[in-house]
Amino acid sequence: MTDSPQMSGIAILGSTGSIGCNSLRVIDSLTTGRMRVVALAAGSNVERLAEQVAAHLPELVSVDTEAAAHDLRARLFARNIDLPRIVTGAAGLVEVATHPQADCVISATVGAIGFVPTLKALELGKRVALANKETLVMAGELMTRAARSSGAELLPVDSEHNALHQCLRGERREEVRRIILTASGGPFRTKNKAEMKLASVSEAMRHPTWNMGAKITIDSATLMNKGLEVIEAHWLFGFGPDEIDIVVHPESVVHSMIEMVDGSVIAQMGVTDMRHAIQYALTYPERHSCQLPPLDLTAVSGLHFEAPDRDRFPCIGLAYRALSEGGTLPAAMNAANEEAVSAFIHERICLTEIPQIIESVMNDHSNQPAKDIDTILQADRDARFVAASAIERLVKAAV
Amino acid sequence: MTDSPQMSGIAILGSTGSIGCNSLRVIDSLTTGRMRVVALAAGSNVERLAEQVAAHLPELVSVDTEAAAHDLRARLFARNIDLPRIVTGAAGLVEVATHPQADCVISATVGAIGFVPTLKALELGKRVALANKETLVMAGELMTRAARSSGAELLPVDSEHNALHQCLRGERREEVRRIILTASGGPFRTKNKAEMKLASVSEAMRHPTWNMGAKITIDSATLMNKGLEVIEAHWLFGFGPDEIDIVVHPESVVHSMIEMVDGSVIAQMGVTDMRHAIQYALTYPERHSCQLPPLDLTAVSGLHFEAPDRDRFPCIGLAYRALSEGGTLPAAMNAANEEAVSAFIHERICLTEIPQIIESVMNDHSNQPAKDIDTILQADRDARFVAASAIERLVKAAV
Repeated sequence: MTDSPQMSGIAILGSTGSIGCNSLRVIDSLTTGRMRVVALAAGSNVERLAEQVAAHLPELVSVDTEAAAHDLRARLFARNIDLPRIVTGAAGLVEVATHPQADCVISATVGAIGFVPTLKALELGKRVALANKETLVMAGELMTRAARSSGAELLPVDSEHNALHQCLRGERREEVRRIILTASGGPFRTKNKAEMKLASVSEAMRHPTWNMGAKITIDSATLMNKGLEVIEAHWLFGFGPDEIDIVVHPESVVHSMIEMVDGSVIAQMGVTDMRHAIQYALTYPERHSCQLPPLDLTAVSGLHFEAPDRDRFPCIGLAYRALSEGGTLPAAMNAANEEAVSAFIHERICLTEIPQIIESVMNDHSNQPAKDIDTILQADRDARFVAASAIERLVKAAV
Repeated sequence: MTDSPQMSGIAILGSTGSIGCNSLRVIDSLTTGRMRVVALAAGSNVERLAEQVAAHLPELVSVDTEAAAHDLRARLFARNIDLPRIVTGAAGLVEVATHPQADCVISATVGAIGFVPTLKALELGKRVALANKETLVMAGELMTRAARSSGAELLPVDSEHNALHQCLRGERREEVRRIILTASGGPFRTKNKAEMKLASVSEAMRHPTWNMGAKITIDSATLMNKGLEVIEAHWLFGFGPDEIDIVVHPESVVHSMIEMVDGSVIAQMGVTDMRHAIQYALTYPERHSCQLPPLDLTAVSGLHFEAPDRDRFPCIGLAYRALSEGGTLPAAMNAANEEAVSAFIHERICLTEIPQIIESVMNDHSNQPAKDIDTILQADRDARFVAASAIERLVKAAV
């Protein structure tokens, strides 16, 4: 079979992570000849990357370091696979994101590292399937402006925003009263403050409904994940802080909702498998059939909804504050959160210290308009520096 | 304020019923000068009709009988209201439905009586806000053909179909795998067959979530209401019997859902107040703000879903059979149901005899294409005759 003229070239940033692997499964499951993987970028999981290269034969591959590139070459050579072009580091990520054959870039790296390559893809008018919410939190204005001026489509892969995208399809923006992000509530939904303070990393990693990477799972435990999603929703759909609500829904069956001015609520539901959102983002505006088992509501014991507890989960309030104040504050908040989560995962601080560190960084931050990449990256760096000091103080105080 | 050129003239068939009264409240609540009531048709509740005429000053009013017309004249005279033109009977209903100033006809009579006037309104290209599901059950093909050829819009007021209409707004028909009608399950959801056999009229009238008229409330108790809705959904949205499912959802918060080919489920939710669906049908494609309290999911103890029990509720299977076999069978089924429900309300038969009567009428029916009004009305009359005999036999056997 020869390539059809409609065949889409796909580049994946973060191909060996949870979203990256699921994206490749989705591409495999779609009709043959529909999509072709042209470029992959991964970090240091060279073993899995080598398998992906062997299966999809991309033209370009990026890894973190020269050592990883060397390892990858050796593995491909051993498998008798023709070597793709192999690039490295931040520049390598940008090369993957801007590959001329890539019509769609799946942006699925974790954290701030995905920001510049994703922005470059948008500037070139490529469709971006965005799983990296941090990029929109840091630089929502730059990203959405780039998409508008190039005509690029920005499609959310986050299940909540993907749900909102689906709910909003038939509706007029001015007739939507508010959007409602659902949150599972995470593993500490029913725990008190004392229990949260003592929570171990493995307890925090026990997400009740979704199987995801480490950073996002900890963010789900503090509900900062939902805070980041509030900011993401603002940039994707143009709603203000007072038009975005959060409701805790432990079963994660309703992925999000919109409330119309006439009181009608439109909800999107589904099973908790990221492949649904990935496929939607890749094939939009078409929907293709999916072999995953459908949602069986009669097998669910019940759907429950409760207001989030902003006292036990102060990250929510911090995110709303960052969105309201705008400028570089969301980037600073995001950077502080990444540093604090990393310190928690390395057992240097306790879970309840994550929002404390973020708040101290935000209080310290001198806010300014997020006018360009350099300003944002500088805010990110400064915040990480302040966060690192705050973490050190806490660690010393605890000794 | 003078009439704006966009002002819509509204005619209501069944103005003193539950939907009729709620429609007038919706019209009152919308911006002044947006809609004007030009014609009203009611049955014998002249007291309420006189109030409606005094409040809305329609040009034309229809009542059941000359006696009711006389009563109405006297009441309006006593209130010093200028008399509208007053007409009566089946011809009067058609006059109201075809009033030249009516842009939109709210079809809210109960049962088969609304069929001919609603069809006439569609033939004239008027928007029909349809609350009378029996008309589509009897004559779905004629009605939808009339709407297509005149360009009339047929908008469902039934909360389930209104929900489906909202869910389908942004979607392509060929990408919808199935539609899922929710059912409260009625007052006998958790009762066994013996309890249902002994059910009194007042027990059957205790609908758990919706406050509606007598006929539809009994239909909700037997789940024939859901069966009628399956047929209604077929004609409104073009889905076949194997693409229409029913799920019991006791809280009636999710009004209905669609499942897409990719497994995504889009649901419409809201409070159980018919004014939402009425307003939607009147103002579509616009949505107008609504003063009713919004849905508060955190105040709901939980949403539950279960498969309907087709053994205890045989009306569901009868309706699917009528839809599959087509022709005049749905009209016969509908007529038999109306007669059986009336006999139950008058305490002549028991609740579980309703499906028995319907089934015997369906088995007796010689099916033929529903090619014109006369054929359908003849099937309706024949079925009522057979149903009446079946009811008499049961009554005699019980003595």
